[in-house]
Amino acid sequence: MRIILTGAGGFVGRHLARRLLAEGVDGRPVTRLVLADLALPDLAPPDLGDARVARIAGDLSDPAVRAQLVEGGADVLFHLAALPGGAAARDPALSRKVNLDGTLDLIEAVAAAKPVSAPPPRVVYTSTIAVLGHPMPALVDDTTPLRPAMTYGAHKLMVEVALADYRRQGLVDPVAIRLSGILARPGGASGLKSAFMSDVFHALAAGRPYTCPVSSGATIWAMSLDRCVANLVHAAGMDTGAMPPGGAVTLPALCFSMGDLVMAIARQTGAEPSLVSYAPDEALEAAFGAYPPLATPAADAAGFRHDGTVDALVESALATL
Amino acid sequence: MRIILTGAGGFVGRHLARRLLAEGVDGRPVTRLVLADLALPDLAPPDLGDARVARIAGDLSDPAVRAQLVEGGADVLFHLAALPGGAAARDPALSRKVNLDGTLDLIEAVAAAKPVSAPPPRVVYTSTIAVLGHPMPALVDDTTPLRPAMTYGAHKLMVEVALADYRRQGLVDPVAIRLSGILARPGGASGLKSAFMSDVFHALAAGRPYTCPVSSGATIWAMSLDRCVANLVHAAGMDTGAMPPGGAVTLPALCFSMGDLVMAIARQTGAEPSLVSYAPDEALEAAFGAYPPLATPAADAAGFRHDGTVDALVESALATL
Repeated sequence: MRIILTGAGGFVGRHLARRLLAEGVDGRPVTRLVLADLALPDLAPPDLGDARVARIAGDLSDPAVRAQLVEGGADVLFHLAALPGGAAARDPALSRKVNLDGTLDLIEAVAAAKPVSAPPPRVVYTSTIAVLGHPMPALVDDTTPLRPAMTYGAHKLMVEVALADYRRQGLVDPVAIRLSGILARPGGASGLKSAFMSDVFHALAAGRPYTCPVSSGATIWAMSLDRCVANLVHAAGMDTGAMPPGGAVTLPALCFSMGDLVMAIARQTGAEPSLVSYAPDEALEAAFGAYPPLATPAADAAGFRHDGTVDALVESALATL
Repeated sequence: MRIILTGAGGFVGRHLARRLLAEGVDGRPVTRLVLADLALPDLAPPDLGDARVARIAGDLSDPAVRAQLVEGGADVLFHLAALPGGAAARDPALSRKVNLDGTLDLIEAVAAAKPVSAPPPRVVYTSTIAVLGHPMPALVDDTTPLRPAMTYGAHKLMVEVALADYRRQGLVDPVAIRLSGILARPGGASGLKSAFMSDVFHALAAGRPYTCPVSSGATIWAMSLDRCVANLVHAAGMDTGAMPPGGAVTLPALCFSMGDLVMAIARQTGAEPSLVSYAPDEALEAAFGAYPPLATPAADAAGFRHDGTVDALVESALATL
């Protein structure tokens, strides 16, 4: 199986690469894995010494970089590379270039590079719950209208629409999955406004006090890194006949409060939950701490899964901290 | 009021230009009207001798043409220019260039050309009921999921999403309206698969026999040209606070059968309804002759209107034949 992975230098990309090399997709081994990103980390597992791995550091908006990336075609393109939400809001023109135009160009390039006898390549596209917008209704499900409230979500939704059309044209065989919070991201200044969900893991694991910028009753949607990667691999191997008409699904995620999360981390790390104090920021609470219950019947039917329980999510997240 | 009108050489564009010059927008006179299209018809009313009119014949995908078009800014951009559905299906790459990339570039250009002290320009964008896709549910309303079944509809929906984001950014003040069939288009080979709705007018008005490619029970959604133009002018002058959150509405349209349409045309023209025979094409009937009842509460609340009755629609359409 020949795979291209963009955003390979990122938090999810690096873990996905390791998983693909170790386990393949549904028992099918990976024969070639092209890792691409603006900058790739220094040689390290998984690619150190693995002859199946190729590395391309460059801007996917550059046609020459795209041509190099898709050369010979691929069975699967994982397109994880994106300009994140905060950066997209600060520079909508760059978001259009990266998250819309460059993404469409890349998908069209991988379709065009398909060997004549091969089926259309699978494209696994990481969309986002930001396509839903806010304020959200009392329950979010597969019928919730898509009204993105930020440029990042708008461009992700536009690509979802384009992918459904590319599928209809027979160019690619897409699976668009909307990710919610992924725990636990590396500590430090990630620039994500939702960093508090991850920062609390690092603080409690280190026995450090932590001032949480949302209330203990703030509700979030999240999945562990391991679960996220398992869902990505499932998206690469699944029968797309199981996907709903639009070709995009909101991934299952647990909905829980920060207070519940803190108690679960404290139990498993032995830290005192009182290390965490709460100083809610009103805007942050409204944007990232007011998620209603979530139902994802389409994704459930298509075989995607959340972590099951908050304890299981925390255990999984602590294992990859 | 300074107005830019793309697609000015087309069927709707020409009539809209005349109306704007004659009546302005909500009593506000037009001081400048820039007509743009790939090719503009020879000098004729409305622009012959009207010092308010400028004409730009050129490809809007060309940055130089766009720069010329938006020079000095505008209060309103009517963006009617598009690669139509059939042509978009035959050449999706050209549809992306014209209906997506070029359209976004034009909207961004008119936003950037705004004088500092002016409010964001109104953009009236003609979207399409093709954003709804098919098969359609038993009743279409403002909650019907948007799942375009053709490239044309996909690109139109993507621009709707982008416009909502441009509005949020404060770049433009958009009104996206989804048009259904417009009666009666000029006779002859328009290339539109829905041409039968208009061709039956021309045949009966001329007392010619007509073989209709859908059944007499086939249902369509339509508005008269005059009503369409009135809705476009309303979109230019309305308070956008009356628009729903997504910023796009399906315009009110009458839903009726071809048999009812034929009887109404026959009554008003004095032609024998038996001039029309029916030889339904299965694919055409499924795609263009199976429209369910339509409810458009959001557009109704925003002041848009259909023709009221089939007889009124036919009378209006015959007057502009």
